[in-house]
Amino acid sequence: MEFTLTEKPDELYDVVIIGAGPAGTTAAIYTARAGWKTLVLYRAEADGALGITQKIENYPGVPGPISGYELLKRMREQAKSFGAKFVRGKVIATELKTDPKKVYTIDGREFKGKVVIVASGAMERAHKFKGEEEFLGRGVSYCGVCDAAFFKDQPVAVIGDDDYAIEEALFIARFASKVYFIVPGSKIKAPPEAVEELKKQPNVEILLHHRVLEIVGDQTVKGIRLKDLETGEEKFLEVNGVFIFLGGTKPSVDFLMGQVEMTDGECIVVNEEMMTSVPGVFAAGDVLCNEVKQAVVAAAMGCKAALAADKFLSGKRKIVPQW
Amino acid sequence: MEFTLTEKPDELYDVVIIGAGPAGTTAAIYTARAGWKTLVLYRAEADGALGITQKIENYPGVPGPISGYELLKRMREQAKSFGAKFVRGKVIATELKTDPKKVYTIDGREFKGKVVIVASGAMERAHKFKGEEEFLGRGVSYCGVCDAAFFKDQPVAVIGDDDYAIEEALFIARFASKVYFIVPGSKIKAPPEAVEELKKQPNVEILLHHRVLEIVGDQTVKGIRLKDLETGEEKFLEVNGVFIFLGGTKPSVDFLMGQVEMTDGECIVVNEEMMTSVPGVFAAGDVLCNEVKQAVVAAAMGCKAALAADKFLSGKRKIVPQW
Repeated sequence: MEFTLTEKPDELYDVVIIGAGPAGTTAAIYTARAGWKTLVLYRAEADGALGITQKIENYPGVPGPISGYELLKRMREQAKSFGAKFVRGKVIATELKTDPKKVYTIDGREFKGKVVIVASGAMERAHKFKGEEEFLGRGVSYCGVCDAAFFKDQPVAVIGDDDYAIEEALFIARFASKVYFIVPGSKIKAPPEAVEELKKQPNVEILLHHRVLEIVGDQTVKGIRLKDLETGEEKFLEVNGVFIFLGGTKPSVDFLMGQVEMTDGECIVVNEEMMTSVPGVFAAGDVLCNEVKQAVVAAAMGCKAALAADKFLSGKRKIVPQW
Repeated sequence: MEFTLTEKPDELYDVVIIGAGPAGTTAAIYTARAGWKTLVLYRAEADGALGITQKIENYPGVPGPISGYELLKRMREQAKSFGAKFVRGKVIATELKTDPKKVYTIDGREFKGKVVIVASGAMERAHKFKGEEEFLGRGVSYCGVCDAAFFKDQPVAVIGDDDYAIEEALFIARFASKVYFIVPGSKIKAPPEAVEELKKQPNVEILLHHRVLEIVGDQTVKGIRLKDLETGEEKFLEVNGVFIFLGGTKPSVDFLMGQVEMTDGECIVVNEEMMTSVPGVFAAGDVLCNEVKQAVVAAAMGCKAALAADKFLSGKRKIVPQW
C-alpha cells in the first residue's frame, strides 16, 4: 500500500481527532452527529489497547465475547454513519496554538482543524532494547516511510506484532533485499488478510516467538541477536537496519511537543471538560494517565471531550480554560 | 403482579446496587464478573432516563437507532450472564454505617450488603402540582402498596406515564371502585404488554394528554381538575385519592437519609473512585449531579465504582475514604 496525498491541502476541519480507539471514535460519533466536520487520524486498523484485545465481554451493552477490534469497528462504522472521516496516518507533530491548529503525519501530510482532540492512547514503549538507543539513526529506525530507501538491497529486521508493523514491513520490503519480521510473541495481532499479504512477499521471513537480545554493530548496525523462545536457541542475523514498531503502555504524546501542560512531562493535564491548557485542544482516553483503563471509561471521556468541543465551536463558552 | 417475600431474610450480598440504569447495570457487570455476589434493586422495567428514551443511536458500539429500553435490556442480560441477580423493589430507606449495610424496599423487604452502590438516577420531581403538598397524606400518595387499601370501593386518580405507574395502577385497581389513569403526554412509556394489561381492567379509564391543573378538597381530597391538551377542554373528576408516579430530573437520594455527605443537600460528594463519605458506599451515574447526562458516561462511572468496590471488598485499600 502506498501513501498518497488525497487530502485537499487547504481543507479545514472543525474537529481533528488523533486516535481511533474508543475515546477518539466516541468523540467522532458525537461531533459528527452534532454536524461538525470531523476527521479522525489513526495509525493502524487494529491499533491501540482495545484494537489488539482478543476478547471483550464486559463492555456494557455489547454482549460478548467479541474481539476488541470488532467492537472498535462497530464504533467506527457508527461515527462514519454520522459523516466522520477516517484517514490513516501516524501523527508526528502538531501546531496547537495557531488558528487553525495543524496536525502533521509521518508521510508529510498536514491537516487543519479548529479543534483538536488528542486520543492517541498509551502504547508507547517505556523500555528499549539493548543497543536501540545507541544505534538510533545509525540503523535503528521507527519509520519505514522515512528510512526504508536507505536500505536498498540490504537485509533488515522489522520488529513488531500488529498490522501497523505489517504495513511498514510491506513498504520496507520494496527496498530491502531481505526483511526478517520478528514477532516477540506467538501471534501477529492483525487481520488475517494483512498477515497473508506479508507471507506472500518472497523476501520476507517471519520469525514468531523470538525475543530481541541485542542490536549490535560498530559505526552502524551490523546485526541483531535473538532468542527463539520455543527452542531456547540463540541466533544472530546479519542486518544493516532494524525497524521497531512495538507497542507499550506509556501515553503517546510526543507529537504535542510540549505545547500543552503536562505533569511529570508525561501526563496531560485536563479540566473537567477534558480541555488541556491550550484552548480548543482536548484530550480523552488512555493518553490521560487514568488508573482505570477500560474501553467504556475511555469512550465516556471521548463523549465529554466532544460535548465540550461542541460548546467551544459554538462559542457558548469562553475560550479561556476553566481550571 | 403481587409483591412477595422471596428473599431469604438473612441472605448477605457482597454488593447491593440501587438502580438498574446504565450506571447500576454496568457496576453489576463488573462486580458479578469479578465473582462478587451481586444484587441489583430496580424500581421498574423501563425505569430511569435511559429506560424511557425512545431512540438512541450514539451509544458507542451499539449502532442504532434502538430504544433506550432495549439497550438497557442488553446490559442487564450481560450482568445476569455473569450471575448478578435483579430484584424489583423501590428503595425507600437505608442503613449505611452498619456492617452489613441494609437497604429497605417499599414493600418491607430488607437486603444486606457489604458494599452499596447508589445508582438511583435523577428522576425525582422538582415541581409539584397545585394542592399536591397540601393534601399529601390526606388523599395524595406516592405508594399504591402502602395506601391503596385506604381507598377500597372509592374512585381514585393515578398520574403517571411508565410501567412503574401501570404496575401501581394495577395494584390500586384491586381496591378502588374506579381508577383514572392520567397521562400528561400522549404516550405511555412502557412495554405494550403492560399497557394492554392496564387496558383490560374494567375499572380503569386511561386519559391521555391530560394536564393536571389542581388537586382539590377540604379535609381530604375530593377531586382533581384536568385540562385535555388536545381539545382544550377542562374537566373535574371526583376522586378521593390521587396517586402520583411521575419522573423528574432531581437526583433520587431520599433513601440515603442524610447518611452520606452532600452538597446543597442534593448532590452526593464522591472521591475519584466514586466512593461517598461512608466507606463501602459508592455512587455512580445521574444521581451524581454531572453536567453530562449520557448513557456511556453513566456506564463508565458504574465501571469505576465497581472496580473500587472490588478493591474495597478485597481489602486492597484502606477503608478510609481518600479525599
